[in-house]
Parts: sequence; structure tokens; C-alpha cells
Amino acid sequence: MTKEKIAVGIDIGGTNTVFGFVNRDGKILAEDAIKTTHYDEIEVYIAALYEKIMVTANKLGNGIEIVGYGIGAPMGNINKGTIEHAAGLSFKGIVPFVKIFNRHTSLPVIITNDANAAAVGEMIYGGAKDMKNFVVITLGTGLGSGLVVDGKLVYGNDGFAGEIGHTTIRPGQSNRDCGCGKKGCLETYVSATGLKRSLLKIMADSLAPSELRKYSFEELDAKIIHDEAVKGDFIAKEAFLHTGRMLGFKLADVVAHTNPEAIFLFGGLALAEDLIFKPAKEYMEENLLSIYKGKVQLLASSLSAQNAAVLGASSLVWT
Amino acid sequence: MTKEKIAVGIDIGGTNTVFGFVNRDGKILAEDAIKTTHYDEIEVYIAALYEKIMVTANKLGNGIEIVGYGIGAPMGNINKGTIEHAAGLSFKGIVPFVKIFNRHTSLPVIITNDANAAAVGEMIYGGAKDMKNFVVITLGTGLGSGLVVDGKLVYGNDGFAGEIGHTTIRPGQSNRDCGCGKKGCLETYVSATGLKRSLLKIMADSLAPSELRKYSFEELDAKIIHDEAVKGDFIAKEAFLHTGRMLGFKLADVVAHTNPEAIFLFGGLALAEDLIFKPAKEYMEENLLSIYKGKVQLLASSLSAQNAAVLGASSLVWT
Repeated sequence: MTKEKIAVGIDIGGTNTVFGFVNRDGKILAEDAIKTTHYDEIEVYIAALYEKIMVTANKLGNGIEIVGYGIGAPMGNINKGTIEHAAGLSFKGIVPFVKIFNRHTSLPVIITNDANAAAVGEMIYGGAKDMKNFVVITLGTGLGSGLVVDGKLVYGNDGFAGEIGHTTIRPGQSNRDCGCGKKGCLETYVSATGLKRSLLKIMADSLAPSELRKYSFEELDAKIIHDEAVKGDFIAKEAFLHTGRMLGFKLADVVAHTNPEAIFLFGGLALAEDLIFKPAKEYMEENLLSIYKGKVQLLASSLSAQNAAVLGASSLVWT
Repeated sequence: MTKEKIAVGIDIGGTNTVFGFVNRDGKILAEDAIKTTHYDEIEVYIAALYEKIMVTANKLGNGIEIVGYGIGAPMGNINKGTIEHAAGLSFKGIVPFVKIFNRHTSLPVIITNDANAAAVGEMIYGGAKDMKNFVVITLGTGLGSGLVVDGKLVYGNDGFAGEIGHTTIRPGQSNRDCGCGKKGCLETYVSATGLKRSLLKIMADSLAPSELRKYSFEELDAKIIHDEAVKGDFIAKEAFLHTGRMLGFKLADVVAHTNPEAIFLFGGLALAEDLIFKPAKEYMEENLLSIYKGKVQLLASSLSAQNAAVLGASSLVWT
């Protein structure tokens, strides 16, 4: 009997670490998780994670063969196999993740950041299967990006390519603080948090009535704003328009760097569909150099949103 | 006798078309030119160019063997072998350059834009010989760029990657017209022309005395402004400071895309040395995400300025 080849995809988040057993077609055969927050020591955390993966493997039985481990983690560095100074994780400094993981297995272990994993996932299982040049933008709490050039993910000299979320809107003229220490980074405008921040500014300037005036900043989230926008709330719609427009402006710049065939939007905000795609597409086109106009597709990621991170991580193994 | 292998590099400019016979080490054995402006028909122009190249080859005699032709041209498209809607050339529309050139020779003929040729030249003969990830910015009348990722030039889906000169400064907030039809493109600030335009704005605002107040816009050029800046002229120095700062801001964005090891400045403005490098370096560092800080070198191109375009074009043959 030929065993089914399986890539284990691991998505390391601040709260949970989710893993899945994924076949070459992107089907998840099994999934489980451990609490990232339960562990202070990286060695203990990785040992516990590996053990839980083995338990899942045993449950799946003899029909499968694990061929490698792909890991998506904030500040995951593929060149060095490390997680470096990840703000949202309890493991501080530079963590030699792959080295420690390899104490448990001699199979390939590949780590990179979430957005890069999403880009590879799109290429292996998703809408970019036949594409050589594309960009994936992940819109979550922040904004991540993964660039694919000539069929290969761009890692860069230090393993940290694709930090488009930290390019600057209006250099020297924005007061919006970014978690990275700079001001006016793209992700302070274009992300779930950016949407909230823009909403507050619009609410401050406008006299329009809005259900959203009843929510505190902490209570607000992209889903609440989305639902009000769909109902016709002026302020919510303006916040989406502003967010989409800022995204569109910057996508025109992204195109001028690597001239991709398509840009995929991935993550929570991408689910807002026309509310975000329409202004983004319009302002991207308006700002494109004529040689690019009408040639770059703006698409929603075709990875299932629920397992996208695990799928993306697993896809690293097939490259 | 082994013949010396020669790449013919051809630099197509609006006025002149210069070509050189270049060996693998970047030494130019012979050089000549024809007037681009003398020809209205592309077929006649290419026939005349090829004939002149053959004359030069005959002069060099039996010791050499031409192995290919590399061409740098405005809007040169490597994917299609075309020159497309080049504003500065008399050949309009989409010109199938390589196809026509191949009527004369069956050797490889490769065409791309000037900035891409400069990037390959830097990699083959220049300061990027041992680099896998770098960017070349050409500062002439406009601003061009060539991106190298993982040892290969980035061409993009349509063959038009690296148009960083047309990314936008302060989207929606700049009134500076660009030749491309947009407003506030980087090259309207950072180029020989951009320097002049910024100088005029500073001159309008300032009361400082300046020799440069005696020059018309048309009389001014980067060399004149440079010479006054060196003498201590306040307005000239401010113009360079502004130009370098705008460049630095944008270089930080460029780094966030492909995370290069180095950025090379090439062309006239790059010769202004500290006047442009100091503010560019300072503002780049200030705007870099912390993971990149102190890691990206800003260097002057090491190709001889005089033959740089021909060298760059010839280098395409060796890739």
C-alpha cells in the first residue's frame, strides 16, 4: 500500500498554536491545537507540540507518511530558521525554532511569517496555481504581505522581505502611531485596527447619527463596523471607503515594484467584499502607471478562511 | 587560437545609439554610435545599426567572437522583445525590436529598459558581483530602477517591473505633474529635473541671496546647482537636501518590499556624492522598520559613468 504523503502545517499565534495534517491537494485530514500561552520555555513548548502532533499521527494510523513540517509564525525567518523578536509571543529574543524542532525529527522543517505562508498556500493550493508573479496581502489585526516573483517566494537578504504593512503613507505628515515605533505605516490605516482608527476620526468630524457611537473603541471590531456599513450607516461606509482607498493607493506602488499578475487579499477584512474591494480597485487603477492599467487582477484569496493559516504553513513543505 | 568572446552592448537614447564590444570582464574593446534621430523607419534604423556594428567587428579582426547582443532602451520589454510607446524615441507604438534585429543575426538578442540593464551590469561587472538581492536606482532626467531578487532580475508579469520612479509621494496631496500623466511621482522630486523643480519652490519661498536666481528654469541643470551647493549656496543646498530626503523616504519603502542587501545609485545625480547620499541615507535609516536598520548599504554604482549604459546593456548577454 502506498502511503499518503502529508505535510504538517503549524500556525503559531499568540494564544493558540494550531496544526493540521494536509495532503498535496490541500485537504486537511486532521487538526488539533495547543495553547501557546501555556509555555514560557521554548524547548518545553516545542516538545509538547511535537508530542501532540505524534498523537494525531497515531490516530490517523498507517495510511499516511509525514514528509515535512511547515510553520507560519510572526517574524519567522526562513533564512535562519528562527523567530526573531515577535511582539505577540511569550518567547523573547531570537528563538532558533527549527534547530530545536529538529531535535525531534530529521524531516525538513521550514518556518516563515504568516503572510509568506499565505502566499505559498495560494500558489500551491489556491487561486495562484498557474501564476508566476503575484502578491498576497493579509488583512488582520495588522497588514502582512508575501511577494512571489518568477514562481518563487521573495525572502530577501535577511529573510524579511514583504513588510509592506510598514511602508509609509504621506511621509512626515501622518500622526498615526504604529506598533513598530514609526508613524503612518500602511497597517495603521489598512487593517482591522486601522479601520477602527479611521472610523473614530470620521466620527469625530461628522455629525451623522450612527449606532456605532454607542460602542467604545475596545468594543468595536471590523465585524461590527461591517454589519453597520451593510445596513447603510454613513460613518461605517466612510471608514471602509477610506480604508479601501488607502489600500488602493499603496497597491499601485506595489505593482510598480514587481509588476504582478494579481494581488490577493486574505484575512478578515477581505471578507467585507465590495466594501473593501471596490474602493481599493478604483484607487489602484487610478494611480497605476498606464502600462499596468487594466492588467492587474485584485482577487480574494481562495483558501478557506478558517484553515488558511494552517494550509499556508503546510504548503511550504511542497516547495 | 581561442577567440575572445564578446557581448555587444547597445544603448538606445533619444538622440544617439551607442554600442560597445565588451568582454566578460567588462572591458570595452571598441565603441561607436549612430544618430537615433536620423531614422524614421525602424527597419532602416536597425539595418544601419547592424551594419555599423559589423564595420566595427571587421576592424577588430579575427580575434573576437560575438556571442550576443544586449540592448538597453526606454520601455524595452524583455518578455516580448519590444520597445513599447517610448516617449523619447521617434519609433512610435509597439516596436518588435528583437524580431527585426533577428533578420540580421541568429545570435541571442536581449532587450530591456536602461535601469534593468544597469542592474544586470552591476551584478556582472560591478559592485554587486557577490550579491543576490539588491536594487539599482538610476538618477537621470527621470528615475529608473532595477530589482534583483535571488540573483535574478525581476521582470514581472508584463516585463515592466521596477517602475519605482512612478510610485507616489503623498498620495492625493502633491500637485507636481509627471510626464506619465500622474501627479507627485517620485521622479518629479528625485531626478535631475526634480532637483530643479524643488530648487524653484525653495527659491520662491526663501529670501536668501543666490547666484542661481540669475538662471532661467531652462538654463538650470543639476551640474550648475551642484557647483553652487559646493560653494555654500543655501538654496542649492536645500534643494539637494530635499531631494535626498525624498529619496531616503522612498528607499525605506523599497526595502520593505524585497529586503535587499544594498541599493546602488547610478547616473548624474549619484555623482553629487554626500549632497545626495547623506540625506538619503539618514532618511532611509530613520524610516526603516527596525529589523532592517543598519543592514542595507547605500552605494554608488561602480560602473564607469561614461560607458555605464553600454556596459549594462552588454551584461544581459552573460546572464
